[in-house]
Amino acid sequence: MSIRIGILGYGNLGRGVECAVKQNPDMELVAVFTRRDPNSVKILTESAAVLKVEEAATWQDKIDVLILCGGSATDLPRQTPAFAKMFNVVDSFDTHAKIPEHFANVDAAATENGHVGIISVGWDPGMFSLNRMYASAILPDGSDYTFWGKGVSQGHSDAIRRIEGVKDARQYTIPVEAALEAVRSGSDPELTTRQKHTRECFVVLEEGADAALVEETIKTMPNYFADYDTTVHFISEEELKAEHSGIPHGGFVIRTGRTGWEGENKHLIEYRLKLDSNPEFTASVIVAYARAAYRLAKEGLSGCKTVFDIAPAYLSAKSNEELRRTML
Amino acid sequence: MSIRIGILGYGNLGRGVECAVKQNPDMELVAVFTRRDPNSVKILTESAAVLKVEEAATWQDKIDVLILCGGSATDLPRQTPAFAKMFNVVDSFDTHAKIPEHFANVDAAATENGHVGIISVGWDPGMFSLNRMYASAILPDGSDYTFWGKGVSQGHSDAIRRIEGVKDARQYTIPVEAALEAVRSGSDPELTTRQKHTRECFVVLEEGADAALVEETIKTMPNYFADYDTTVHFISEEELKAEHSGIPHGGFVIRTGRTGWEGENKHLIEYRLKLDSNPEFTASVIVAYARAAYRLAKEGLSGCKTVFDIAPAYLSAKSNEELRRTML
Repeated sequence: MSIRIGILGYGNLGRGVECAVKQNPDMELVAVFTRRDPNSVKILTESAAVLKVEEAATWQDKIDVLILCGGSATDLPRQTPAFAKMFNVVDSFDTHAKIPEHFANVDAAATENGHVGIISVGWDPGMFSLNRMYASAILPDGSDYTFWGKGVSQGHSDAIRRIEGVKDARQYTIPVEAALEAVRSGSDPELTTRQKHTRECFVVLEEGADAALVEETIKTMPNYFADYDTTVHFISEEELKAEHSGIPHGGFVIRTGRTGWEGENKHLIEYRLKLDSNPEFTASVIVAYARAAYRLAKEGLSGCKTVFDIAPAYLSAKSNEELRRTML
Repeated sequence: MSIRIGILGYGNLGRGVECAVKQNPDMELVAVFTRRDPNSVKILTESAAVLKVEEAATWQDKIDVLILCGGSATDLPRQTPAFAKMFNVVDSFDTHAKIPEHFANVDAAATENGHVGIISVGWDPGMFSLNRMYASAILPDGSDYTFWGKGVSQGHSDAIRRIEGVKDARQYTIPVEAALEAVRSGSDPELTTRQKHTRECFVVLEEGADAALVEETIKTMPNYFADYDTTVHFISEEELKAEHSGIPHGGFVIRTGRTGWEGENKHLIEYRLKLDSNPEFTASVIVAYARAAYRLAKEGLSGCKTVFDIAPAYLSAKSNEELRRTML
């Protein structure tokens, strides 16, 4: 029997989950829950129902894992604990500083109701976290570096869009190649914010807007741009649509370290992602962890888990025997 | 209290384990067991005992995890099941084709005696296997590629040394950059053995040996060199010692895959290792898994495990709370 998946929230991430479920023959999408009018939401999976969020409670026996595809700012802090009372859940909560609090809330709700909740799944947090953790456990005497990009930052793009005179914008975060090379060399560089990443902005102006003022406003914006070397390009709306409608992202997690009685040998561990679609890749990671949530719950476990708590084999559709024979 | 580590076999790997234990404050090396005369074996850790292998049985209460540092050809198939009867054990068994058989033998011995045995730990098998597995679970529609090097292959170096007229030799396996780039591009290339790696040999001849004949013998050696583009350099014994005495290695595990309703988006997951010392890095991975073996045994688990079966958090000296706060 398939693992029956539900999706709550049908934006880019929810649609990505739907696509990822299709790629996994042991899973089946049974329902999408939305805050919009269900009749207005067109999904791709013909066999799945589209329902109002309020109806989710009546689907507890028909869904094995509910995947929460809301945002980290306001949706997930409420939704994940609430739905962990009714379902095994997976979310992609990515406000790093608030993970301990979110973990505690989900753990209480999931434990009390005998469900498994896996939080902060995706690539950062997620696969990048795993790689930071494995690498630091293996090379305790070393340094960690995370670089992001080249990729679209939604938060930074939104910040530009809020500037007066801006009609639309897209912002790319780009790792500085020289910084990457310095890290890979094992020279253990101390890198400032400015040395690690540059920011490139493609901006469509409203008619009559002051380009010089917009550029200055972007480049001096505290937190978002002031600490970076930022380039601003003004382009037409057509060009933005044609050239910048994708949501690529990626990055690098690097650990350099030393071994030997006197630390005489150097080592480099590097993990890299290059993603055409940030939400679809995030969704693909989430769906593998949905398999883990299903299996852990079957084994009678409950409570909140993160990627650190889950043995890798739980993610794979292959049996343990097959994994040992073909992948070890 | 520290995790008390024993080492069985004090070659390059055993010495690497000794160095790795020193880097982990929650561990302590208590004994090294050797088949040689213990008086002839000088170790680095002053507080640890050096003993004959036969004495290991009397140390069962004084060692939490015994790390088996013998070879995969003849040592580990006998040693790991035998010592799993007495200790929690970790080995680096790397004969991929025989892993299922080795697993079954260790599992029987460990289970019957309430111990944990973790096999095939290192980087391939080990971290490379983990990365193959995670990446294929996340991107089920994709292709796997593993490249090795640049690094010293002991097996190939030994094969050259067995040729008449060869005094000493060192062989490097080198990934072909163009093949790596083709894989990274997502073009899903079918690569032959020759297209993936080249082999470079540094050979010291015996006096009066026939260089042309030695070179021809190397280049046409079945399995080892015949399927590769091989370069042979004849150098002096001094140069071999000065320039080629290290044991570097490394490589790349790459998965490319597609997501989206029609597979319209491409993704690249790349894991790279660049190691000054192959045995010291292998030892560093083993020591992290020794921590896991200790913890799993404390929890009452027993039987044979691989890297696929062990949740990442077990490897880290940090608490789960600290991992979530600092690494997720």
